[in-house]
Order: sequence, then structure tokens, then C-alpha cells
Amino acid sequence: MGDPAGIGPELCLRLLDHAETTRVATPIVFGDTGILRRVAQKLSLPFAAPVIPYAEWAARGSISQAAVVDFAAIEAGEVIPGQVDARCGDAAYRYVIGAIDAALAGQVDAVATAPLHKEALHAAGHDFPGHTEIFVTRMRAEKSCMMLTAPEITCSLVTVHVGLGEVAALLTTERIREVIDLTASAMRRLRGREPRLAVCGLNPHAGEGGLFGQQEEERIIAPAVEAARATGLTIEGPLSPDTAFLPERRRRTDAYVCMYHDQGLIPLKALAFDSAINTTLGLPVVRTSVDHGTAFDIAWQGVANPSSLYEAVRLAAMLCVADG
Amino acid sequence: MGDPAGIGPELCLRLLDHAETTRVATPIVFGDTGILRRVAQKLSLPFAAPVIPYAEWAARGSISQAAVVDFAAIEAGEVIPGQVDARCGDAAYRYVIGAIDAALAGQVDAVATAPLHKEALHAAGHDFPGHTEIFVTRMRAEKSCMMLTAPEITCSLVTVHVGLGEVAALLTTERIREVIDLTASAMRRLRGREPRLAVCGLNPHAGEGGLFGQQEEERIIAPAVEAARATGLTIEGPLSPDTAFLPERRRRTDAYVCMYHDQGLIPLKALAFDSAINTTLGLPVVRTSVDHGTAFDIAWQGVANPSSLYEAVRLAAMLCVADG
Repeated sequence: MGDPAGIGPELCLRLLDHAETTRVATPIVFGDTGILRRVAQKLSLPFAAPVIPYAEWAARGSISQAAVVDFAAIEAGEVIPGQVDARCGDAAYRYVIGAIDAALAGQVDAVATAPLHKEALHAAGHDFPGHTEIFVTRMRAEKSCMMLTAPEITCSLVTVHVGLGEVAALLTTERIREVIDLTASAMRRLRGREPRLAVCGLNPHAGEGGLFGQQEEERIIAPAVEAARATGLTIEGPLSPDTAFLPERRRRTDAYVCMYHDQGLIPLKALAFDSAINTTLGLPVVRTSVDHGTAFDIAWQGVANPSSLYEAVRLAAMLCVADG
Repeated sequence: MGDPAGIGPELCLRLLDHAETTRVATPIVFGDTGILRRVAQKLSLPFAAPVIPYAEWAARGSISQAAVVDFAAIEAGEVIPGQVDARCGDAAYRYVIGAIDAALAGQVDAVATAPLHKEALHAAGHDFPGHTEIFVTRMRAEKSCMMLTAPEITCSLVTVHVGLGEVAALLTTERIREVIDLTASAMRRLRGREPRLAVCGLNPHAGEGGLFGQQEEERIIAPAVEAARATGLTIEGPLSPDTAFLPERRRRTDAYVCMYHDQGLIPLKALAFDSAINTTLGLPVVRTSVDHGTAFDIAWQGVANPSSLYEAVRLAAMLCVADG
């Protein structure tokens, strides 16, 4: 459900009532019934899903109809929409941990997350840069990466939430190879065929033969690309980052492997706006997320766009089906 | 004319014959007549412009009709289209230097450059990363920056041809302020009104309050933005780089000030393809350039797209008119 003071509750209410999505997946909302009821009433949205108290959930095994797992983590009357509140940050954290544990226990097939508010999360003492790191830590994933996907463009990230000045020192051939393999595997499932991957260089013009940078392209990136190609992958690179995203190349590229956060997210957001879905590859279960924030400025107002959450659930379902 | 073995000669022939462009500017091609004649014959393109040997040019003052200044820098019969050749690199360098000197002497109002081939340039012993650096050096410009502009998006660059790992250490408040001022002045001329500028942060999410990076946003970038705002500029930032280029913000931004090459060029090329024009701000004369390379693979074949050169000349004319 994400942060109770954000747009998450409204999105979840709309999701539970969205026939197109509930046809491909059975949504089970991990959140607070009190909040959902208050938002439903304020916005005149239906809320008819059965409620399962979290204390009873573990014993329920799996269920086959849309439902809400109620954490009663926060007093609904005390939440002010759009306000950073440590209690909300803590509640949101508990929903996520509950969902992760349910996934690990096989009670749910996948987790799609509504937005957290990082300040609230940190105020509650949960020191994670975002959802991804919570999943990776709780699931003890050894190899994982963030991939963002939209109809126009898909990007995986070798490094994510680190300063730009630290990126070069963090690149290793092994890590790039890991992200290539995770991306190839995910795109194989999504496309149902061998994907075509492109790997970006680090420096302007991919270093222009060592002219810019420390030959990261020749020393670190190219060996990963060549090793992946040797296993039969269709893969290009290291490409000059500025021309990598030209329309002609986008059309023949299923996914890009990007060296740093903004190398992937700038073109992704410029081209796909807020329609991209964030998924964490390499986890023992499928995990997707909306690609927008808590939108505190429009929380509980009935104007939040739920399409990214619908897409996140749809993508999770696709990845599960393809999984087996 | 750019590198004789590239698409430059074909583009120049088409430019001399393009009524829409010659209406707004008088093109004077600095190049080799022998090459132009050979390409004109091969592609059945007209070549009727008067020819002025470079030795006579300096004495001619300025002229008011389209012409070719002939350097006779290379034996036309020996040039193989699409081939890296130090003689071509040297010839291209001499055309540029001739055009720069003509501009400094007031014989031409602006210089628009066709593409160089860097390998050929370097093989000839001219050790510049590109045109921009040749102009800056020859014109002894103290403050300058590269700006790329297209109808969809305009970006100025604080750092350009340096490794990604070196960017953070090169940022200073003074340099950012300089690029802001150069950009504001150019956009004021192009738009005919006060421009709205946006300045990107360096790190993911603009550092997220110091969480990623070394607080470059707070320490270095924000003071430059605030100082510029204090002079009355309409300016936002430092913005999270990944959301800075969303369509809604693009519509209300005349130009972006970007911290590094690919922060500006990735969205620019993804959105504007090869229609962007490169201009060097801060020079004593107006200088623009096509935003594509020598395209050796299609040199002298009659299929090169001249629209970027037309646009470069048109933009140069606009900047000159606005200059006074």
C-alpha cells in the first residue's frame, strides 16, 4: 500500500476494483484497513474486499480472491494526507516486510509495491535508500539489479543509488556480466525469444578509444560484453551513451545495460514519462514497483493516476507465468 | 567544408544551392574547389559559385554573394571517400583556421562547421578533441561553453570531453555560474524575451539531500543557481536529473544547464535525433555546427541529409541578427 499519507491507498482501492487487472492477477493489498476505509469514504470509492488481520494471515496459507491484509499499524484518524510522518514510514515498512515474507513463504507469487516516502521511512529508523534495498536485504539476494521497463525502452542498472563521482570506481567486469545475465534472463521471459541487448559505455563517446576517462570501456566493459557474446547472447557494446538511445537503435534493442542511474533513467523518463515499471531482478520471487513517488501534493484527492500500479501488477503476472 | 573524405563537400554543394538558406545568409564555403568539383560531377550537383583562392581572400575584405574560398590544400584525385587520411585531416584543419581568422577579421559574421574526422585530425598532428576546442584556443576565449539546441530541447554543458569519473572534481560554482550566464544571454537572443532556465544536479535524485555523492548540489550547484536568480534570472534547480526532462517540464524550460556531456546529450539525441545544432557560446563571433559526424560510410554518395547544416547556418544567422 506504500506510505499511508501518499497516493498508495487510493491506488490500491482502484486496483482492487479494476477488472482488467484482477483478471490477470489476484491482488492482496498489504496495508491498513482503517486508512483504506477513510480514503474510500472521502473519495466515494468502493471497498468490498474481504479483510484478513495480519495476525491470522500466516495461518491462512494462500487465498484465491482479492483481499486486504490488515496490519492495523497506524491509527487512521491521525494520518494527515501529504505529511511526512515517522509513523507512516514505519507502517509502510511493515507492509513491505509482510509482503516479502509472504512471497518467501509462497503465500503470494509476486510483490508489486506502491510508493514509499523515503524521509518518512528514515524518520522511522529504517535506513534504506528505497524498496529495492529492502527486498535485497530481506531476501538475502546475492546478485540482483534494478530494471525499468516501458513499451518504448527498457534499462537495467549496474550501479544505482551512489554519487556520480563514485560510479567509475564501482564498475567491475563481474558486476556488468551479472547485470547482463539477469537482464537477458528477464527479457527472454518477457519477449518469449532471445533478446537483443545493448551495453552503454561509461564516458562521453564511450571513451573515444581511451581519450576520455580511464579506458573503462576497454578494461572493464568490453570484456563483459565479449564474455556474454561468447555464450551466444545477441549483444552490442560498449556503445557511445549519447547515440545509444537514438530511435533507430531503440527499435532493435530489447534492453539496455546502463552503467549508472541517470544514464538509464534520463532517457527512460524522457521517453516513457511515468509509464515505466521498476522490477528487481535476481530475487527469489518476482518484484515490481510503480515508477512514481508518493505524490504527497495530490494524496487522497481522487486524482492519482493508477495506470503505473496496474502495469506493475500486469508485469509481475507476466514474469510469474513465464517463470513456470 | 569539414573533412574532404566525409559528407561535408556534398553538404556544402547543396547549401550553396539551397534558396531557403541563402535567403537568410550568404554562405562562403572554406574548402577545396577540386574536391567540390569532383563531388559535384559524381553526384550531378550544380556548382556555379565564384571561387576565390585563399591567397587572395584576405585582401578581398567581405563579399556579398555566395562563394567558395579555395585552399587547394589537397590533391582532389588522391582523396578516397570514406577513408581516414592525415592529408584530409590537415586540410579540414586549415579550412577551420581560415574561417576563424576571417571571422575575427570581420570578413564573415559567423562560422558554421561541417564535420571533422577526429582520427584524421589527430593523424595530421592537430591534437584537439573537436571543433569547439580549436575555436576556443584560436580565439583565446576565456569563458565559453557548448550549447546544443533543437526545437524540442536545448542543453548547455558545464563539462564536456572528460571522463565521467573526473566530472565531480571539475565542478565549481564559478564555472556553473559562467555557463548559466552564457546560456541566458544566448537564449535571450534566440527567444527575444527572458528565458526560463533549469539547472540539473549531478547525482541521482540531485543527491537526495546529501544521501548520494558529496553534496555537490548543496555545496557547488545551488549557490550558482541562487546567485543567478538574485540577478533576476528565471531559473530552477538543482533538479533531479532523471525527472528534469519529463515533457511537462520541457515545455516550460527554454534551456537546461547540464553538469556533464551525456546528462545533456542523452536526452537531446533521444528526443531530437540528429536535428540538434551545436553552438559555442562565449566566443567573440557566432559559431555553430552540425550535430553529426563525417558519415564516412555514405560519403560522396548523394544520400547525405543536409538539414542539420541548413539549420546550423539558419541558427548562426539568427544569433547574428539578434547580436545587433
